[in-house]
Amino acid sequence: MEMIDIILDKRYGKALTDEQIKYFVTGVTNATIPDYQISSLLMAIVLNGMDEREMTTLTLEMAHSGEVNDLSYLDGIPVDKHSTGGVGDKITPILIPLLATFDVTTVKLSGRGLGFTGGTVDKFESIAGFNASLTPEKIKELAKGSKMVISGQTANLAPADKVLYALRDVTGTVDSIPLIASSIMSKKIAGGAKALVLDVTCGSGAFMKNVDDARALSEAMIKIGKLAGLKTCAIITDMDQPLGRCVGNVLEMQEVYETLTGRGSSDVIAVVTALAAKLVSLSGKDNGMIEDEIKAECIARLTDGRALSRYVELILSQGGSVNSQGSPLYVERPFESMFVTSPDTGYITRVRADLIGKASVKLGAGRLTKESALDYGAGICLYAKVGDNVRRGDRLCSICTGEGASLPEEALYDAMDLIHEAYEISDTAPESHKAVIDVLS
Amino acid sequence: MEMIDIILDKRYGKALTDEQIKYFVTGVTNATIPDYQISSLLMAIVLNGMDEREMTTLTLEMAHSGEVNDLSYLDGIPVDKHSTGGVGDKITPILIPLLATFDVTTVKLSGRGLGFTGGTVDKFESIAGFNASLTPEKIKELAKGSKMVISGQTANLAPADKVLYALRDVTGTVDSIPLIASSIMSKKIAGGAKALVLDVTCGSGAFMKNVDDARALSEAMIKIGKLAGLKTCAIITDMDQPLGRCVGNVLEMQEVYETLTGRGSSDVIAVVTALAAKLVSLSGKDNGMIEDEIKAECIARLTDGRALSRYVELILSQGGSVNSQGSPLYVERPFESMFVTSPDTGYITRVRADLIGKASVKLGAGRLTKESALDYGAGICLYAKVGDNVRRGDRLCSICTGEGASLPEEALYDAMDLIHEAYEISDTAPESHKAVIDVLS
Repeated sequence: MEMIDIILDKRYGKALTDEQIKYFVTGVTNATIPDYQISSLLMAIVLNGMDEREMTTLTLEMAHSGEVNDLSYLDGIPVDKHSTGGVGDKITPILIPLLATFDVTTVKLSGRGLGFTGGTVDKFESIAGFNASLTPEKIKELAKGSKMVISGQTANLAPADKVLYALRDVTGTVDSIPLIASSIMSKKIAGGAKALVLDVTCGSGAFMKNVDDARALSEAMIKIGKLAGLKTCAIITDMDQPLGRCVGNVLEMQEVYETLTGRGSSDVIAVVTALAAKLVSLSGKDNGMIEDEIKAECIARLTDGRALSRYVELILSQGGSVNSQGSPLYVERPFESMFVTSPDTGYITRVRADLIGKASVKLGAGRLTKESALDYGAGICLYAKVGDNVRRGDRLCSICTGEGASLPEEALYDAMDLIHEAYEISDTAPESHKAVIDVLS
Repeated sequence: MEMIDIILDKRYGKALTDEQIKYFVTGVTNATIPDYQISSLLMAIVLNGMDEREMTTLTLEMAHSGEVNDLSYLDGIPVDKHSTGGVGDKITPILIPLLATFDVTTVKLSGRGLGFTGGTVDKFESIAGFNASLTPEKIKELAKGSKMVISGQTANLAPADKVLYALRDVTGTVDSIPLIASSIMSKKIAGGAKALVLDVTCGSGAFMKNVDDARALSEAMIKIGKLAGLKTCAIITDMDQPLGRCVGNVLEMQEVYETLTGRGSSDVIAVVTALAAKLVSLSGKDNGMIEDEIKAECIARLTDGRALSRYVELILSQGGSVNSQGSPLYVERPFESMFVTSPDTGYITRVRADLIGKASVKLGAGRLTKESALDYGAGICLYAKVGDNVRRGDRLCSICTGEGASLPEEALYDAMDLIHEAYEISDTAPESHKAVIDVLS
């Protein structure tokens, strides 16, 4: 078999055979196929597509290009959740302890954030002492014990995907449903879970800019998951404006704590309960409840302290610190250094998540390159969101930096400009806005 | 400007700006753009196309990526001819002396052959002593003197094209009208001619498999030529069967000699005179003759020895040897080592040029890699072509090897099998067959 023939087949719009896809993934993993041939095939896939069978084969070959976690030592069905990324997305730290209250086990292997989509590992590492670099033995111990695990990905999880992901980033081949779907699903399959809910975000702050694209990506991933023997469903959520009230590592973890003490914002609660209802149901821990009943039960457990106590257990089990009242201690303290006020009177019709995300990166809350250092205390608190009525001079949001950080004044003003650009204000109220747009299974 | 944005623009089907194309070609020439980004853009161009302005800019930028020959020291309009390749194509050695009889100057910079499309330089080098590696000074001397020059290309002619050509070969991006057209036209523009006729071949032995594709490529190149200020026209010729009676270096030069002594085959004469009529006309040396009159004049000059005497002059001026009768001396003597006979009685309906070409490479007449050695005496003589009526056992062709060559017997049988596959024989006569399919200007 020759790589050139594989490229030519896809260039002429043919479906690749399973053998061709296997040859390609093996060559990518072993570095025997040169980058220029890989990128040529990637562009041909972007423009000529892949059918379900091809996507599934690509996913499974990538999943098996390295180690596949074996979670068969667990009783029951281990679950996983994946978000396609967003701004202010603090769902995972709320969801995992909530699922644990239903006796559902989650082994969450997360990446660090790049660009404005913050990584779950970064957020947990903003808690003093928290260790997210776990050995396989420690993961097993925690999964069997507390049923909650947060860990960075090991180097050998789907290594073929790592190569392709890095190359896609510099060759204009990121935006492709078959490539996005196979990349996500290969890591999920290698992660070892048996049930999966996908949180497919859509809007200005997401990969998918509109609901049709989000639905197409969801359907592709659900098909791959099912063909690969993984119980899979997806919810499509709004990411045109940031999720919840805060963006930034410590700020979001503070919002997590508020949510676990019954003071969550309605959009965060809508997304968390939609995901939890699906996962409790897929893992067979529903005790006969229908999904609406599970959601109501979720809200009760977020309010009465049951989810919070599991959260504290999770933090302590991975070395994190809490004070004597059970509230987490953070590595940095956010300081509200500036307020952004409304230039007009009217209804807020849009708060562009991409611009808020960029502003938070300017402040030091996200990474522009893998090597960038984070200011855990930096970020933005949103006082007004879509649908709110504001008067000229009202506070729209505050800009935070870590108490120990020294940010150049210029960056502060750049962030403010971006925030002003993000807010759109009109005389007429916008149509009502749903956090959970659709559920697919 | 960033290469990634250029890739993304083409990936989303936008036309690239002149500045973007210039940035790309400069980066290719200076090796500052990595191969994986070049190949990703090439595949996006293959699948999303380029408009005329983009093609012309790409062509001109590649032409000016190295030296551009300055032929302004010549009186009159120097001409050039380019064939998109074929099997048995011995047009150039006939055309150049024929044009010289009309006082038309040709400076032909040719490549060596790769695969089954023989190179003009290889064919001339099968004449003992012939030197096709000329210095710029020698080219100038010959162009002003005999008006006939045959030389290999210098390393610095359109270097950006050399990089792209090599990369296209291994990334499945050869077959693209914008990329083929800009590659050919960049070299022709850098070559310095002011009038150009393109011989666009079509059929099994050509890049373009059908007349529609050949026409599209011709039109693209004519538009680029005109936008670049080069008088350009194209003829579309049949390359479904080999051209003329012989395939192989010495064998074809022997056929050249026969044609120049009035014994040419009808297809070779049709193509040579069509090209010559266009070039004599474009260069203004037509003395008021219409093209049909020029063609008749060409046939006269091919028969009465005028073209032959210019041919001998060309050979001698570049160091080649002829015997006392003026017939060229070759570096090797072809030996008919085997005859292939017809398995059936009937009409020959097809002689696939690609398979005859492959058979000749098996015999040593062509190169599989740049480093392969040639057997100048090897090749195939066709005794029967499309439309001929044969009886079972009649000779279809002979297989030749150089007298000094020692070919493994296996290669001989491989060639015979390919030749049998190439010939298609039927009870009913095929439709009549034209060597020159169309003329475009």
